Amino acid sequence: MHEKRVLTALRTGGAMSRAELAERVGLSRTTVSEITGNLLTRGAIIVAETDAAVRVGSGRPAERLCLDPSSGQFLGVDFGHRRVQVAVADAAHEIIAGGVSRYADGTPWDERLEIAFALTERLARETGTHLGALQAVGIGVPGPYVGDQAGVPEISWNRSLAPRGVDTAFAERFGAPVIVDNNTRFAALAEAISHKSAVSDLVYVRLSDGVGGGLVVAGRLVTGGRGFAGELGHVTADPNGATCRCGKRGCLETVASTPAILRACRERGASVGSLDDLAQALARRDPAVEAVLREVGVTLGRVLGATAMVLNPDEVVIGGEIVHLAPVIVEQAAATLRFELYSIPAAEPVVVRAAQLRDSDGAVGAIAALFHQSPLLAEYAEAAPPAGSSPSQRRSTS
Amino acid sequence: MHEKRVLTALRTGGAMSRAELAERVGLSRTTVSEITGNLLTRGAIIVAETDAAVRVGSGRPAERLCLDPSSGQFLGVDFGHRRVQVAVADAAHEIIAGGVSRYADGTPWDERLEIAFALTERLARETGTHLGALQAVGIGVPGPYVGDQAGVPEISWNRSLAPRGVDTAFAERFGAPVIVDNNTRFAALAEAISHKSAVSDLVYVRLSDGVGGGLVVAGRLVTGGRGFAGELGHVTADPNGATCRCGKRGCLETVASTPAILRACRERGASVGSLDDLAQALARRDPAVEAVLREVGVTLGRVLGATAMVLNPDEVVIGGEIVHLAPVIVEQAAATLRFELYSIPAAEPVVVRAAQLRDSDGAVGAIAALFHQSPLLAEYAEAAPPAGSSPSQRRSTS
Repeated sequence: MHEKRVLTALRTGGAMSRAELAERVGLSRTTVSEITGNLLTRGAIIVAETDAAVRVGSGRPAERLCLDPSSGQFLGVDFGHRRVQVAVADAAHEIIAGGVSRYADGTPWDERLEIAFALTERLARETGTHLGALQAVGIGVPGPYVGDQAGVPEISWNRSLAPRGVDTAFAERFGAPVIVDNNTRFAALAEAISHKSAVSDLVYVRLSDGVGGGLVVAGRLVTGGRGFAGELGHVTADPNGATCRCGKRGCLETVASTPAILRACRERGASVGSLDDLAQALARRDPAVEAVLREVGVTLGRVLGATAMVLNPDEVVIGGEIVHLAPVIVEQAAATLRFELYSIPAAEPVVVRAAQLRDSDGAVGAIAALFHQSPLLAEYAEAAPPAGSSPSQRRSTS
Repeated sequence: MHEKRVLTALRTGGAMSRAELAERVGLSRTTVSEITGNLLTRGAIIVAETDAAVRVGSGRPAERLCLDPSSGQFLGVDFGHRRVQVAVADAAHEIIAGGVSRYADGTPWDERLEIAFALTERLARETGTHLGALQAVGIGVPGPYVGDQAGVPEISWNRSLAPRGVDTAFAERFGAPVIVDNNTRFAALAEAISHKSAVSDLVYVRLSDGVGGGLVVAGRLVTGGRGFAGELGHVTADPNGATCRCGKRGCLETVASTPAILRACRERGASVGSLDDLAQALARRDPAVEAVLREVGVTLGRVLGATAMVLNPDEVVIGGEIVHLAPVIVEQAAATLRFELYSIPAAEPVVVRAAQLRDSDGAVGAIAALFHQSPLLAEYAEAAPPAGSSPSQRRSTS
């Protein structure tokens, strides 16, 4: 916490001496010297100059310290089905480099890792960012990530899931501790802390190629007993519905994933092959498309309503590119959800809103998960150890 | 924690001197003297005798300490619709007194409080228990308890809800800190810690006059943003179902509460007016009753399955007297729930079981909530202050 204040002072106040810093943050000079010594060693800050030029009187000139503008402190990586995103944040939590590399759907995971490494190192080169002082790496992956938990089987029906060992590969490459988790869960966390005052109870769902979710309960990300919490996409929305890739019928994903929505539009005669087509159909107020989106909103609102009845969240957040093109989904889901919560009195009804972060901000969500200053991460996860240290449990399940 | 070890040693080892105690628990004699001094002051332990009789050699005889068998340390109270239960536990967490007083449905809350006070004091008299050393009082009430939270309205449709101020009334009467919460939530906690090794993720539902629930997530009781978490009874099970007392249609409560189940049996021609009648109908294998109970199990399993898909609990526990008479409800709910979780691989499938504690153990659940030694209660709630101190937030919502 003291370190954070020192870093904030340097970010907002520019270069200053240890004495000025001590006065500004209200800490003793001894404490400030300890903190800045550590930050210098880690490469988070640098000695900018001495104060000889501005100094009045005699005596040894004092060093002036400032943030190293080229030092990456936090690396965020987001693996999607067809692309990987990378973002680097500095000690002040500002994003200083970011980029994306695409790959074919179904690309093996060892290739995806190499693509991510190459992207990260290219970004560092191009932006003059050095990665020697990385404090931590956050990695979002599609679907649940079971890490090295004993006794948890892989999911056979979802071939895009990350294999065990992603954490170790990054820890070895960058010599920093690594947290890996489902990217939708990271997005939930990023939404919860996207306000000035963090929201402590939040339900997040993302409509994408699939439908995923994440929960923040009492200020903490929820993993569940076995690491599979938040699987809103496979809640049964209609026991007589379409067959899902998981084997059940009528999962929320069979109604509210982007492909399912586009398919439903086509079945009603709308010529909608892509999200762009959907946006155009909405612009010309295609009634079949409007009806489909309303129905999706109702189904989504029912599933979210049952979840909200059980968890009593402050906010319900709906993410995915489609909700930004078709806000009617959020509007209808909000109306249905509020009726589902009819039994519960509320001075202020639950907030239902579209996500603030877009799908293209996945790496930012992973970085948000690294900012341990957030009370939301207290006791959530222990980062994977850097290469060379002994293996330990990645995720707290107790 | 040290205090707990001292108390455990005295409970299992009987009377012993401070020196013996220090050796047994592996603490310094100074520390043991401090702890026992405090326990003596609070009346939790007493000086049983000196060791003069058993002592070899000369010197001043040492005091032998033991638990005060008549000292109530924890008071648990459970208000139901038609009765209040009281239990008193000693420093060793053993129940040393307990009883029940009945009242008419709809009895005003000020009368219920007086009945509870009278019962508690009568129990103390009859069992020779003294209540001067109470460490804390736990009180279970029907429905959500909003305490003094600003901005949270009362629930108008549920007239059995406890009014604000129950905590203050008990704090003033017994001069001890008070925790008040929904009794179903306390039951969830009691189930989670009923094993040798506490379960960290548990969903609890109780089928009674209504249907309520409670959640333990990552080892903590969940309150939700506004204190209404766990309202499984008002999750919509069938949008076209019967009208619920809350105003919606087809809430789980309209299918799975005890009165709803008995009504459904009668609608199928079974002459079932009470739980006793239901037990007899099951004993003679009444097919209409069997069918109703199977259907209840399916509906319950679907709602619990959606909840379990979102929360990924280790255990799902179904409570209420009816599930002990009709285990088929749990059996069918378990089967339906496991199919709902079909998407999630599991080395060990989620445990679905009937509650271990019965409805008549409500006061024990309230006491379980007081045992702060349980990690399950860490950061859950701050107890209400004893009378005379300044009011503060009863329930942590951050």
